[in-house]
Amino acid sequence: MKVDKSTIDAQIKEVENGNVVTPKGFQAAGIYSGVKRSRKDLGAIYSTTPANAAAVYTLNQIQAAPLHVTKESIAEDGKIQAVIVNSGNANACTGKQGEEDAYTMRKELAEQFSIKEEHVAVASTGIIGLDMPMDKISSHIPKLDLGETTAYAEAFGEAILTTDTFKKTTCFEAVIGGKTVTMGASTKGSGMIEPNMGTMLSFITTDAEVDQIALQQALKKVIDQTFNCITVDGDTSTNDMVLVLANGEAQNEILTEAHEDWDVFIQLLTKTCEHAAKLIAQDGEGATKLIEVEVAGAKTGEDARKVAKSIVGSSLVKTAVFGTDANWGRIIAAIGYSGVEINPATIDMAIGSITLLENSETVEFSESEATSYLQEDVIHIKVDLHLGDRSGKAWGCDLTYDYVKINASYRS
Amino acid sequence: MKVDKSTIDAQIKEVENGNVVTPKGFQAAGIYSGVKRSRKDLGAIYSTTPANAAAVYTLNQIQAAPLHVTKESIAEDGKIQAVIVNSGNANACTGKQGEEDAYTMRKELAEQFSIKEEHVAVASTGIIGLDMPMDKISSHIPKLDLGETTAYAEAFGEAILTTDTFKKTTCFEAVIGGKTVTMGASTKGSGMIEPNMGTMLSFITTDAEVDQIALQQALKKVIDQTFNCITVDGDTSTNDMVLVLANGEAQNEILTEAHEDWDVFIQLLTKTCEHAAKLIAQDGEGATKLIEVEVAGAKTGEDARKVAKSIVGSSLVKTAVFGTDANWGRIIAAIGYSGVEINPATIDMAIGSITLLENSETVEFSESEATSYLQEDVIHIKVDLHLGDRSGKAWGCDLTYDYVKINASYRS
Repeated sequence: MKVDKSTIDAQIKEVENGNVVTPKGFQAAGIYSGVKRSRKDLGAIYSTTPANAAAVYTLNQIQAAPLHVTKESIAEDGKIQAVIVNSGNANACTGKQGEEDAYTMRKELAEQFSIKEEHVAVASTGIIGLDMPMDKISSHIPKLDLGETTAYAEAFGEAILTTDTFKKTTCFEAVIGGKTVTMGASTKGSGMIEPNMGTMLSFITTDAEVDQIALQQALKKVIDQTFNCITVDGDTSTNDMVLVLANGEAQNEILTEAHEDWDVFIQLLTKTCEHAAKLIAQDGEGATKLIEVEVAGAKTGEDARKVAKSIVGSSLVKTAVFGTDANWGRIIAAIGYSGVEINPATIDMAIGSITLLENSETVEFSESEATSYLQEDVIHIKVDLHLGDRSGKAWGCDLTYDYVKINASYRS
Repeated sequence: MKVDKSTIDAQIKEVENGNVVTPKGFQAAGIYSGVKRSRKDLGAIYSTTPANAAAVYTLNQIQAAPLHVTKESIAEDGKIQAVIVNSGNANACTGKQGEEDAYTMRKELAEQFSIKEEHVAVASTGIIGLDMPMDKISSHIPKLDLGETTAYAEAFGEAILTTDTFKKTTCFEAVIGGKTVTMGASTKGSGMIEPNMGTMLSFITTDAEVDQIALQQALKKVIDQTFNCITVDGDTSTNDMVLVLANGEAQNEILTEAHEDWDVFIQLLTKTCEHAAKLIAQDGEGATKLIEVEVAGAKTGEDARKVAKSIVGSSLVKTAVFGTDANWGRIIAAIGYSGVEINPATIDMAIGSITLLENSETVEFSESEATSYLQEDVIHIKVDLHLGDRSGKAWGCDLTYDYVKINASYRS
């Protein structure tokens, strides 16, 4: 029997004060090693047992060295037991030296934690094209002091940040196969790419026992509806990575697509990724507002997300939201150039509960009410295309003076 | 015998102080009708004889009413004798009333100039979704006072502007089939779309005699390498239109693809469109600099232009240029996500005469020299992919505080 989506959704509970070490059997660390000027810049996550791992990487053809090393590790036997992450230097466009450095980080962390080299994942974020200051990294790996309290998760969360203005923590739980399964995430990202100090990284831990192949397929599917639906500036980093570690410590019966609670697990992963993705959009460089666009009445979910992304990616929509201007002309124009075939005469549009358009024609609305709504922290734009019954969402942020400031004057 | 491109290029001469009425047999007008607050907002171009016409329109699926009417006019017999253009109101998303209003503009201009209705083209630019103030337009059409001096061309050029900061005038000539043929253009555009006050329009006049079908094909081809290679903010307007009128007053033998000077005509059209396109990029909303990106070593011209557009469209490249920061990591990242298959290890890159990358690895360069170069008005970014022998260009502008200001606070 197929359970409907809202029933499943109700089974997912947010864990208050939960984080990346809340799932059983995970520890974390975060310290200052000197790659960045003063803030924490080196972190690790550790699982007491090798965890089934799944990852997705940037689609940019220019990929940083740590991505190659992580792919190689996962390819070995599908398991990861520890992750090392540094911020301040992306180890991208660094040639052979960069590859060597990423391998060195992997090897040294494995030695430190007495685990297999091929069970270590590596990630970096920061300046492109500079050699890694390996003396600093190598001399600090022995100082990575693991712990399983909130303070350690927070130290890790801080160590992976660059231009981010806050730590991005997520934690949900669900009962799956009669066992409580927990999923935590620590995420960073502010510009979709900001090669001086940039990139989007998300590390997801869960104590669920999940088949590794099923986990990889689940992640790929969920990414398309979550992390791939956010945009800050339309640029795609060389270093993006989302990594899920499932260590099985919850002792549930192993999850595969055939398990009766598979949909609950998918929803747990979706909620986790969506929450993390929204945190990135909300903390977009210079952003003052989170924009959520929901497109209904599309022929396919992909169409709906494409239109939603076109709207939330439009510089003109983003500046209008910053300027609290209910400029629906910019929204309908972004629908028109989204690449999805639409009917120009059947579009409904609303911001919050204020209807702006019906059947593509303007509806009388109070400008002052709209302006007042657009001053809120989260702006909902809703569009109905009236072409089908599928819907999709995308998230972004407003475009502000501070975006220009952060990106124009970073090195000065 | 195929003449090489540089020989052809040398035959195209810029006409000093030339404009849209410099080609024989064209007149223009521009007046204030009250659609905008105080500046000129209604203009017309008139040819003494019906001209062979070609046009390309926005690819946005939401198309303004005047585009439908202009298409219908050209479809009649391929000829246009007069154009009416207003600024301040885009007549877009205005339903049946908008269509009626565009037809009324066409009819009233035809009556005014005593020409066939189907020989009139209509264009609008300005706010989306507001009904046209037809009382103002209709009462001012009789006041459109045509003339063939520079003052009239300038009045027209002013009447089509919105957020533009300067009038965009182009004029070139070439000897074709033994006759001097002149081509002028009057262009507007500042945001690629700025639906409050936006859109890209270009009206090109020439006294060349050109076969109408050949002219349409030539325009389509040239557009891909000129107007379609500029970006200000990545948004595509509902009202974009490029219209060429060729009235044959130069009395050259009719031009078709088979004519021995066809390549000269193509180059004349290319130069005209490229010049006009660059003026738009240079006047991008809030821009302080024109950015020209040239990509060489591509497998196809289309690939080269795609990579060039990806670079010039990157918000991070644009802010770096504004901030005079030689941030090549942002440029290489934009190459990597352009959608064109590249070799990540064979990229050369320079700004002006300063080499930044060779074979994708950083070359030592003087930061202060680079910063000083990036203070110029026109910034050249050169990339060689080393994959083939094709090249292509794209143009854009920097992203500044003023872009945000113009677009966030327009209506306040």
